[in-house]
Amino acid sequence: MALIVQKFGGTSVANAERVAHVADIIANTYRQGNQVVVVVSAQGKTTDELIAKAQEINPNPSKRELDALMATGELVSMSLMAMALDKLGIPAKSLSGWQAGVHTDSTHGASRVKRVDAERLRNELDKGNVIIVAGFQGINKYDDVTTLGRGGSDTSAVALAAALDADLCQIYTDVDGIYTADPRIVPDAIKIDEITYDEMLELASLGANVLHNRSVEMAKKYNVNMEVLSSMTGAEGTFVKEVTDVEKLLIKGVTKDINIARISAMGVSDKPGIAFRLFSLLAKNKVSVDIILQSVGRDGTQDISFTVASKDAPQVVQLLEERKDTLGLQSVVCDNDVAKVSIVGAGMETHAGVASKMFEALGEANINIQMIATSEIKISVLIAEEEANRAVAAIHDAFYGE
Amino acid sequence: MALIVQKFGGTSVANAERVAHVADIIANTYRQGNQVVVVVSAQGKTTDELIAKAQEINPNPSKRELDALMATGELVSMSLMAMALDKLGIPAKSLSGWQAGVHTDSTHGASRVKRVDAERLRNELDKGNVIIVAGFQGINKYDDVTTLGRGGSDTSAVALAAALDADLCQIYTDVDGIYTADPRIVPDAIKIDEITYDEMLELASLGANVLHNRSVEMAKKYNVNMEVLSSMTGAEGTFVKEVTDVEKLLIKGVTKDINIARISAMGVSDKPGIAFRLFSLLAKNKVSVDIILQSVGRDGTQDISFTVASKDAPQVVQLLEERKDTLGLQSVVCDNDVAKVSIVGAGMETHAGVASKMFEALGEANINIQMIATSEIKISVLIAEEEANRAVAAIHDAFYGE
Repeated sequence: MALIVQKFGGTSVANAERVAHVADIIANTYRQGNQVVVVVSAQGKTTDELIAKAQEINPNPSKRELDALMATGELVSMSLMAMALDKLGIPAKSLSGWQAGVHTDSTHGASRVKRVDAERLRNELDKGNVIIVAGFQGINKYDDVTTLGRGGSDTSAVALAAALDADLCQIYTDVDGIYTADPRIVPDAIKIDEITYDEMLELASLGANVLHNRSVEMAKKYNVNMEVLSSMTGAEGTFVKEVTDVEKLLIKGVTKDINIARISAMGVSDKPGIAFRLFSLLAKNKVSVDIILQSVGRDGTQDISFTVASKDAPQVVQLLEERKDTLGLQSVVCDNDVAKVSIVGAGMETHAGVASKMFEALGEANINIQMIATSEIKISVLIAEEEANRAVAAIHDAFYGE
Repeated sequence: MALIVQKFGGTSVANAERVAHVADIIANTYRQGNQVVVVVSAQGKTTDELIAKAQEINPNPSKRELDALMATGELVSMSLMAMALDKLGIPAKSLSGWQAGVHTDSTHGASRVKRVDAERLRNELDKGNVIIVAGFQGINKYDDVTTLGRGGSDTSAVALAAALDADLCQIYTDVDGIYTADPRIVPDAIKIDEITYDEMLELASLGANVLHNRSVEMAKKYNVNMEVLSSMTGAEGTFVKEVTDVEKLLIKGVTKDINIARISAMGVSDKPGIAFRLFSLLAKNKVSVDIILQSVGRDGTQDISFTVASKDAPQVVQLLEERKDTLGLQSVVCDNDVAKVSIVGAGMETHAGVASKMFEALGEANINIQMIATSEIKISVLIAEEEANRAVAAIHDAFYGE
């Protein structure tokens, strides 16, 4: 007998028919002799509809009240799911975030789980019940309802799995696992059987968009075995865990991120401390900087280029323009038509030639590399946005082709 | 400075526009220097929609899960109302049933409030907040969400008013008070300024349908001053309290109830204990019997007639038919086309002639009285259903005419 946490997203529970389908999956897991804790999201577009309802009444609602409102979506899903299981003869009980003992900090709208008081969960499991927990929510120390932000139900599932020392945390989604590239761009993309937490984190932050990053961080911290799988096919998905098999793929995935912009501060005076002042200004304004390229200067000046998220770009340009004089820079240029294409794989640190293979593939495809950044398990290049899909395909072909 | 509890029903908060209108009422009360606790119902038809959603998934859902589901309707209302007040610059905080400390027994779907732990409510009021409480709901000793049944938000409001020792509990509705008769039947019906708890209870149980009976019982028990008023007109409504003024109306209202049936057990053997056995059989089956008429027997038999709620009539007929022999009765007759018309007034016990005036009015209108029942503050007659409206009008005219 294993203890399994299963998470189902909003699409999987969007209507009565899908709720019944998911109930069948849960019932099968239970009938195989497992203890089951289920985490559900709000049905379909419910959360967006609730936000629209709030906007109609107050365009700038308090985050506390918005959390109280949004959290109702998952409460509806959880009770409907319990009813669906009851109909199948499976003893089931729904628990809201607070009933399930999910305690968070007080950052309404983006709370972090602090602890899970699992006493009630254990009692209900011991009674033979399947537990359906409302995802995405918890309570803070004031007994106010909080929400965990976009994708928060993944985090709920991992937090419960960690607290209950579950054998497996299954994240059911509309894809049947993690792929070596987006199958819409690369039809030959391969489903990965196993991937490490670190690889998954790099893939998620690079825009692979399958798992919520915070959930993977938490899974790594508490060593929770995760599986990403499809609620439609029922086939085995991708396991995310600490150690992967020996016969691992050299790289686990090729990804692209087009939501970035390149900012260039031109003609910066070539004096010590200028770069420091520039980047501490951005840090103070909570702008995350990714790849940095500092050109070798001539005529006593240099250019500093860096990438930021597209949404931050206008603010960054304004900040730099306002401080042109104090920073001693001549002009600021912003390019939104760039993309970051990356390869991720824990294997690359022990394999020489991965970077050169990637650059060679891009060169043969006649794609110009603007900037490069590397880490132990990742290599990223900045290229023109219009060439992003072609770059992903070319790199994928170089590593997995034939 | 007074502490006022204000309750708004589902129609009053049905959409963004109405929520804004109610927020204005609350804001005015607050700006006049009062502490305000607001109780809201679910928006419009939300509760019915949630029940339909449940039915689609499981035609016979568990009452625990149905409670968890239905309670979300009021959670949506409470947060939207807090947002609307926030927009008006009024500090407001929403609290669910459990956050407001509303503890109930475990009869899911029809729970009774056992106590209100008002500590948090008092703290939030002391901070200067308007508190918006989700009506209709509480939690039981297992920390499960419960609901109080139809009209339960009235009970929530009175329970909170009692716990906080509020000066007034205002029940906002779509009528502007309690009338001496249903204005749709009797256009001359008069709005009552004040009415006692007992009178209100008789009126409510007789079908006046303005206040939930349980809320009036609780108001009486804890001596909570209530006011029934309209959220549209803003005019003073009807006060429900212990002692009314001296210049009180002789009778407070004329009501009809058509949801009853008359059952006649014919030819019952005229032996001691038969009536007892018959009514204890009904009590054991949780059927409430109202008016009873036992005819004088002849030929060693008698007829026993009594009224029950229409919905119970088929069960009663079946019970009696099955036990014809043991009860020693010849036949069972059920008449659904009857109505109970009643007058209510605490004044009638000290005024002779009230009953005769009522019967005279019916006689002049040529309406036949089938059965009569009286209490200290009420006289009811059973008549043919088709004559009910005419009876109400005739009686009302006799007492209030000219």
